[in-house]
Amino acid sequence: MKYVDFDKTEAFKKLSALPKKGKDFNALLSAERVKTSKVAAGGGLTYSWAAKGVEKAELDALQALADEQDLIGKYKALLDGEIINTGEKRKVLHHLLRGQGGLAVTGKAVIADGKDLGKFYAQELERFSTFAELVQAGKIKGATGKNFSSVVQIGIGGSDLGPRALYLALENWAIKEGKSFLKARFISNVDPDDASQIASLAPLDETIFVLVSKSGTTQETLSNELFIKDKLQKAGLDPSKHIVAVTSETSPLARNPAYLDSFYIDDFIGGRYSATSGVGGVILSLAFGPAVFKELLAGAHEADTLALEPNVLKNAALLDALIGVWERNFLGYPYTAILPYSQALSRFPAHLQQLDMESNGKRVNRDGSPVHYSTGPVVFGEPGTNGQHSFFQLLHQGTDIVPLQFVGFNDSQRNDDVTVDGSVSQTKLKANLAAQIVAFAKGKTDSNGNKEFPGGRPSSLIYGKRLNPKALGALLAHFENKVMFQGFVWNINSFDQEGVQLGKILTKKVLSGNSGDAALDAYSEILGVK
Amino acid sequence: MKYVDFDKTEAFKKLSALPKKGKDFNALLSAERVKTSKVAAGGGLTYSWAAKGVEKAELDALQALADEQDLIGKYKALLDGEIINTGEKRKVLHHLLRGQGGLAVTGKAVIADGKDLGKFYAQELERFSTFAELVQAGKIKGATGKNFSSVVQIGIGGSDLGPRALYLALENWAIKEGKSFLKARFISNVDPDDASQIASLAPLDETIFVLVSKSGTTQETLSNELFIKDKLQKAGLDPSKHIVAVTSETSPLARNPAYLDSFYIDDFIGGRYSATSGVGGVILSLAFGPAVFKELLAGAHEADTLALEPNVLKNAALLDALIGVWERNFLGYPYTAILPYSQALSRFPAHLQQLDMESNGKRVNRDGSPVHYSTGPVVFGEPGTNGQHSFFQLLHQGTDIVPLQFVGFNDSQRNDDVTVDGSVSQTKLKANLAAQIVAFAKGKTDSNGNKEFPGGRPSSLIYGKRLNPKALGALLAHFENKVMFQGFVWNINSFDQEGVQLGKILTKKVLSGNSGDAALDAYSEILGVK
Repeated sequence: MKYVDFDKTEAFKKLSALPKKGKDFNALLSAERVKTSKVAAGGGLTYSWAAKGVEKAELDALQALADEQDLIGKYKALLDGEIINTGEKRKVLHHLLRGQGGLAVTGKAVIADGKDLGKFYAQELERFSTFAELVQAGKIKGATGKNFSSVVQIGIGGSDLGPRALYLALENWAIKEGKSFLKARFISNVDPDDASQIASLAPLDETIFVLVSKSGTTQETLSNELFIKDKLQKAGLDPSKHIVAVTSETSPLARNPAYLDSFYIDDFIGGRYSATSGVGGVILSLAFGPAVFKELLAGAHEADTLALEPNVLKNAALLDALIGVWERNFLGYPYTAILPYSQALSRFPAHLQQLDMESNGKRVNRDGSPVHYSTGPVVFGEPGTNGQHSFFQLLHQGTDIVPLQFVGFNDSQRNDDVTVDGSVSQTKLKANLAAQIVAFAKGKTDSNGNKEFPGGRPSSLIYGKRLNPKALGALLAHFENKVMFQGFVWNINSFDQEGVQLGKILTKKVLSGNSGDAALDAYSEILGVK
Repeated sequence: MKYVDFDKTEAFKKLSALPKKGKDFNALLSAERVKTSKVAAGGGLTYSWAAKGVEKAELDALQALADEQDLIGKYKALLDGEIINTGEKRKVLHHLLRGQGGLAVTGKAVIADGKDLGKFYAQELERFSTFAELVQAGKIKGATGKNFSSVVQIGIGGSDLGPRALYLALENWAIKEGKSFLKARFISNVDPDDASQIASLAPLDETIFVLVSKSGTTQETLSNELFIKDKLQKAGLDPSKHIVAVTSETSPLARNPAYLDSFYIDDFIGGRYSATSGVGGVILSLAFGPAVFKELLAGAHEADTLALEPNVLKNAALLDALIGVWERNFLGYPYTAILPYSQALSRFPAHLQQLDMESNGKRVNRDGSPVHYSTGPVVFGEPGTNGQHSFFQLLHQGTDIVPLQFVGFNDSQRNDDVTVDGSVSQTKLKANLAAQIVAFAKGKTDSNGNKEFPGGRPSSLIYGKRLNPKALGALLAHFENKVMFQGFVWNINSFDQEGVQLGKILTKKVLSGNSGDAALDAYSEILGVK
């Protein structure tokens, strides 16, 4: 496999030479374009790029880029277990978590040191599925013999944002479908108010805690574990009857009698890519039942399979990635907004913020040499229509252009609605979404500059019938794969996170009482660290 | 008062001519600098700019800019009731909401059409304070005679984000201080799943709804009002015993027998600046008691008073604004991250995102002519330490620089903590914060490019003893005033939001069945609007 910096490719030159029509694509947006510029994204979802400012010239050059950088070949190599995470010398196997029959999407088994990893992941999935069923059936109970009614995840970063976003995304769907078992909550921050508040809300004698740390050494998570153990003990509850761990087999949390059980992942599952492992699977299976979690995996698998297609017009994640590269490197837009028109996806932008910015916020290539082009953008977002009454002002009329990624569904999750002025709220929600896309693209001239909309603000839309587990799995995998493809284009390692290390080291120094830096001591002093 | 485009000022030339040392300020960060580069921000808070890359040359030029654009003069004109919102021809009077004795911070009364507006605002404050006390005392009850235990705000944008952020910021403090009366929830989105879920969680017979819409015509809010009325009726509860309105005196919601009572604001209180009016005040007074809300107003008033100081080094909001201009227009950073090391401030970044991006996301000056420089940045953020395990990777090691605004407190709110490895969690939280500031500024060299941190990433810090109502009020006002000063520098109108109009118009067209745009119809079709 050839790994080349982006600016050394022929495609880079070709893309650089294309006219940057950027703001002038408004005329492109016809009904015909809306009807034809779309591609299946798995799980019943469709990716529409009609309102993106790309035509044949750009698409041809982006196809050439995909071919030259062999993006599909690199994806296959990743799937088959090549050491794609060069910094940490690790395989990257989150796709295998949702592989069918323990095989990679390519149909191959992934073996490491004689261990079939697909089978290992499948076996852990079955273990925690069974565990969840026993809890739901009241066969596994808390210390006082009460059934568990509540689950609290203790984890941070990838052990929090993805699982939380997915839980919220399905909470109302599950209630409507009669698949709501345990009520879930999350503790993440080392701020003690976080753990203290959640501990006060959860009925401790009916609560099972899911302690998630791959290494078993995460400062925040271990502090919060002891916080909770202390609460359990003070309530007269044996902590070992109320905690399960999700960790790696080599961590101090593994096979530890302090826990009801432990479920395993390994170093080939990166934190921000771990939502489809036990990191997300244990709490989602406890909350909604393992069948729901498996539906989510099936949706992700569908998206993973579609991502193998070499034709950019037939591969939603690849096309999304490449249009993003066009906007980032050639139009110079340094951010992307994620705008789900679905309250259920309220924390999905926060997950994608981590997924994208932690994966591709890199300034060196996979060999550690500085790159000379922009990599990952800043990602932010809030649900619509809320955002319309907030930061959309800047998106419409600011001095800079922010590319937009909309998400929307035909149907609500709870199917509980009211007709006002001849339409239900769900229809208003969708009408707003359609209107925004067109408003951003086409704008509006006005003799009063204050009321003028320049338009030319590109957006894509991912849409589907209803946000259900399969659609959600596909949505998650779509973005994971998009980010992966962009990393391949930029020739960076999207799977490590060395940028978190320096802060950890300095924090330890501060806490040890010897920071070795007078400015750091001065900050510690004004914050009252001592 | 002279209003001049930023690029026509002498100061603009002077600032343009300064060397852009940007990345090379690392050496500046000494203990001495941390100890001296700070200024009081009101409410017991301090603004520290030690880790910002500005020295005497920049500060002198920024002072000259403040003087030339007469930022303090413009602030005083605003306070005294000049028509600062040129687009809508309105006064801008949110400071007067927290004025003492109904007077502006300048000590003057603000009279319009013979009406003393300070007295009007003070009178409304007293009216809803009394109302909240009667509810808390069980003198005002629900339809079945039960005391109210729960309050739900129905509002969107400025009627949601600010009040919600402030409620969450004080929820744990109030529990600890014994000032927690009604439990608050919020309905904002037109997505019916939002209202349906909240209606299912709130005990309807013990719930008072606060319906907030200044115009009384907001589509989302009116739909959600009818949604809730329907639920109340189906539960056999008379809606008029369960809803109060916060609106303007000319709105259809005013003096309407459909509500228990109505509390008033006027057109001089912009939505995103309305948190210190009844828009935030009714729900916060119901939740925590009016004395707590008045403490918050006192903190805001303190910050407003400090913002009158012409010396940039003695005026936290002004200095913050000017450093932001330096970073936006001369260093070219298109975004700002808000990073509160306080779980209580989890939604404060979302409020600031609205405040800043809706105020200063403008491409024309206050007279409607296009400006030829960048205005408001993209604002995003999440609490620390959560963010450290998420998007901080890009902040440390991405190809672009994102200016950072940290917030931190000495003490937790709940004072419920655990000692692990020799320190409590609150100490770990603060140690992390101190470490991050220094890591961002100083970086770390390494022979392995992957482990190298370039540093030179500027941050400021707002810190205080504990997040209480007074500190929170000052924090809110600090950012309101920062955004205002930046708008004055850029000669834009920070107080209208014409950018929301086009989407509203197109949405109405879609819902009327005649959009007049084939592409819009095509989007409506794929989303199933019909």
